[in-house]
Amino acid sequence: MKYVFGVDVGGTTVKMGYFDLEGNLIDKWEIPTRTEDNGKNILSDIAKSITAKMNEKSIDKAEVAGVGIGVPGPVTDDGTVLVAVNLGWGRCNPNDELGKLLDMPVKTANDANVAALGEMWKGGGTGYKDMVAVTLGTGVGGGVIIGGKVISGSNGAGGEIGHIHLEDNETEECGCKGHGCLEQYASATGIVRIANKKLAASDKASVLRDGEVTAKAVWDAVKAKDELAIEVAGVYGEYLGKGLAAVAAVANPEIFVIGGGVSKAGTVVIEYMQPYFEKYAFPGTKNAKFVLAKLGNDAGIYGAAKLVLA
Amino acid sequence: MKYVFGVDVGGTTVKMGYFDLEGNLIDKWEIPTRTEDNGKNILSDIAKSITAKMNEKSIDKAEVAGVGIGVPGPVTDDGTVLVAVNLGWGRCNPNDELGKLLDMPVKTANDANVAALGEMWKGGGTGYKDMVAVTLGTGVGGGVIIGGKVISGSNGAGGEIGHIHLEDNETEECGCKGHGCLEQYASATGIVRIANKKLAASDKASVLRDGEVTAKAVWDAVKAKDELAIEVAGVYGEYLGKGLAAVAAVANPEIFVIGGGVSKAGTVVIEYMQPYFEKYAFPGTKNAKFVLAKLGNDAGIYGAAKLVLA
Repeated sequence: MKYVFGVDVGGTTVKMGYFDLEGNLIDKWEIPTRTEDNGKNILSDIAKSITAKMNEKSIDKAEVAGVGIGVPGPVTDDGTVLVAVNLGWGRCNPNDELGKLLDMPVKTANDANVAALGEMWKGGGTGYKDMVAVTLGTGVGGGVIIGGKVISGSNGAGGEIGHIHLEDNETEECGCKGHGCLEQYASATGIVRIANKKLAASDKASVLRDGEVTAKAVWDAVKAKDELAIEVAGVYGEYLGKGLAAVAAVANPEIFVIGGGVSKAGTVVIEYMQPYFEKYAFPGTKNAKFVLAKLGNDAGIYGAAKLVLA
Repeated sequence: MKYVFGVDVGGTTVKMGYFDLEGNLIDKWEIPTRTEDNGKNILSDIAKSITAKMNEKSIDKAEVAGVGIGVPGPVTDDGTVLVAVNLGWGRCNPNDELGKLLDMPVKTANDANVAALGEMWKGGGTGYKDMVAVTLGTGVGGGVIIGGKVISGSNGAGGEIGHIHLEDNETEECGCKGHGCLEQYASATGIVRIANKKLAASDKASVLRDGEVTAKAVWDAVKAKDELAIEVAGVYGEYLGKGLAAVAAVANPEIFVIGGGVSKAGTVVIEYMQPYFEKYAFPGTKNAKFVLAKLGNDAGIYGAAKLVLA
């Protein structure tokens, strides 16, 4: 065995890569995700693309340890995808289906959990075995790794930390139909929502009044010492710190690795959260480290490859 | 190998038992916990008691798989006790120390986690592998089991679910020095606290005005349809449901097993919580089952024995 493939299936593109067994990325590429007809072409497109790459690089099947695949939806330990709305998929098992198409071992897991595994293998969490990855993107995702293994959960809903309930007084609905979930405050959308509320509630001067309010604009303003933006960061930080304190009371990780689009703002996203984490966390869990994710959009293909080798 | 010993070390007594390898309890007994001199006699007392029992029952060392031991404090995966305040212990490792005294394999873990393992093996969670045990006693403890293995956490603080922060407006301090922990509402002490507040805040008639307010008295009054007691149960249920929903968003267990002194009131302790769990839980985690623990005070010796066999 010399190589392993990693596949990260998103709603618009499928990211793919192959690695040597030490985890060095040799090549990566993308194909479009064909979600029409309930996404029935997605797995065969992936199989064709992998076969084409193997031909291009003269890789023999006997040299490939297998293919790992991350899917945006709940996945149980045996690789059963319960549903993947953004792909048009109902219940299916890529371990079997893609495995047959390629005649190679295939391992499937949830995309957020796979990204967590990637960050543990070659990213911000390298060297740790008890780690929680937190993805601050359009939503808030999580991947909880204990003893080097991702917690999938009995319905593939392990690590759904964005839906920890934190606010009884929330009137707006979360994507999950709940009210007051962590995701409503700590995602990119959540930060914009907090900012717009603050802007509407006061006449305080702010650079945020001058252009489109985005999560990036908020963090840029925080760095420029804009008072209102700093208030927004405080609200974000208190909810996120409280949520991660709850995660710590359950899993007591050594390290949190913070990734996703929001984390591109840098360590400032940790600085405004950590004091609240320390305020709300159980004493025995307070010394958790916080670092930024390192692999960006490649975390998924790294982690998918690691799934096969784990 | 024919037998395995299980030891549950408490602040006043050490519970001990031995089992066949299928988990049938053959005999159990107790010895006092000698906490004086920083608890330096506890492990040698245990060793002597096990040796005496082996002599009494003509058990040969070669017939014993080992000794499991549950300790009231944080314990890491290698059996290191970080501290056990109620025993007078600082950092120590009973795997090594008791192992030397007995010349047998010894495995140590946190007492709540060990009790969880016992309930999974032979109690309310039999047949399940992704399980959370919740102990509603003087405090609120937890044991999170994933794939049949207890999550100890990097500092032995895995499953400290009683210290999930739930209430920003709490003025009283929790035992952990935090404010608004689950334990402040769902423990026996917490229920009494809620009841006393309700009694002081209104003139509503209640049987709770007639005697000592204990958790048992509250649940008896709930069963007798006492309105004020039902309000107390509602407050307890909302906090516990919210806390367990957070646990479910992290670990997505198949089943919660509810034990501890408070649970002696019966399924009523689940009935007042479950609607709130369903209100606050992420959809993919809502179908978790809830059952009562079955082993009572013996859960610890069962789980300690299972530690050795796991």
